[in-house]
Amino acid sequence: MRQNSARRTALLDAAIEVLAREGSRGLTLRAVDAQAGLPIGTCSNYFRNRDELLLQIAGRTHERITPDPDQVTQTMRAKPDRDLVTLLMRQLQGRMEADRAGYLAMLELRLEATRRPGLGRELNKVLSQVLEDNVRFHLDAGLPGDRIDVVVLYLVMHGMILDDLTVPEVLAPYAGADLVGEFTRRLLADDTVRAG
Amino acid sequence: MRQNSARRTALLDAAIEVLAREGSRGLTLRAVDAQAGLPIGTCSNYFRNRDELLLQIAGRTHERITPDPDQVTQTMRAKPDRDLVTLLMRQLQGRMEADRAGYLAMLELRLEATRRPGLGRELNKVLSQVLEDNVRFHLDAGLPGDRIDVVVLYLVMHGMILDDLTVPEVLAPYAGADLVGEFTRRLLADDTVRAG
Repeated sequence: MRQNSARRTALLDAAIEVLAREGSRGLTLRAVDAQAGLPIGTCSNYFRNRDELLLQIAGRTHERITPDPDQVTQTMRAKPDRDLVTLLMRQLQGRMEADRAGYLAMLELRLEATRRPGLGRELNKVLSQVLEDNVRFHLDAGLPGDRIDVVVLYLVMHGMILDDLTVPEVLAPYAGADLVGEFTRRLLADDTVRAG
Repeated sequence: MRQNSARRTALLDAAIEVLAREGSRGLTLRAVDAQAGLPIGTCSNYFRNRDELLLQIAGRTHERITPDPDQVTQTMRAKPDRDLVTLLMRQLQGRMEADRAGYLAMLELRLEATRRPGLGRELNKVLSQVLEDNVRFHLDAGLPGDRIDVVVLYLVMHGMILDDLTVPEVLAPYAGADLVGEFTRRLLADDTVRAG
């Protein structure tokens, strides 16, 4: 059967909805067909089996969280200072919170990856690339902070989004505290030079 | 049937092993009996149903990660400076990495909590208490940093352990970088006074 890439993407997006709503135990090729509103059997034309589907979901969740290049260009016209880092973190937080299903699906994949070596290799590769791209982007843009600072920012953001999506009451007492602004300000000096 | 608390704990620990190994889809009362090496039906004498079991696992994972009070007393004899914060973070990291099953089970619970309101309430309560206890402990001990610094430390640790347990290659390039020491040093001034 002929395949097309828009339909493949629609199936992956449907799979992400199923994963987020029902967890990995609800993810079957048939459940994805139903979610996508397509005839039973469509998904199995695009993905050999459930493992193949899981592998491709990893890449798709990453695509969904990647910012629009025009927005990035626009944002990066500002002076590369600490305020710009804060803005970039807020934009990342906004994208992750707007794509609740994508983030929850990625957490399901992370857990499945501990049990499926093939998926584990793919997820390690995709997420290592995300971190390396973030580091490279930050350093190339001349933003304040070094490689380790970028890693720490990435870790704080992941910890925060994990709580926001799974146990939102934990950080609720800090909702007024502007955590993103606070940790950027505390971690980074307001120039590119780090003392000590 | 008579119940006893050591057996209840053994069943919860068996449930944590099942959750970590097979995910929430593998968690049945019978699978827990088998894991614990107890007759089929034992688990259902202790837990009304699977939901009740999930609720109690949340508390048990927390118990398992709680440090031995004697070790805490011993550790807290040192001067309450930044090095002591680093040591406490390393000890937390050590406990989480030593209890891989407990941490993976907690991640499974977090995802289940997004789909089960009762479990969601319990998990929000348990994990909010953990963070508040951490903040209280830190401030009462006179360690450097304020409430927001403690929250940021907690978030970095969670982000780091999440990667270490599910996609260990992502942080592998930083294995030699002493991330825990680095982010404690970068976040906290070496005294209790924060400028600005």
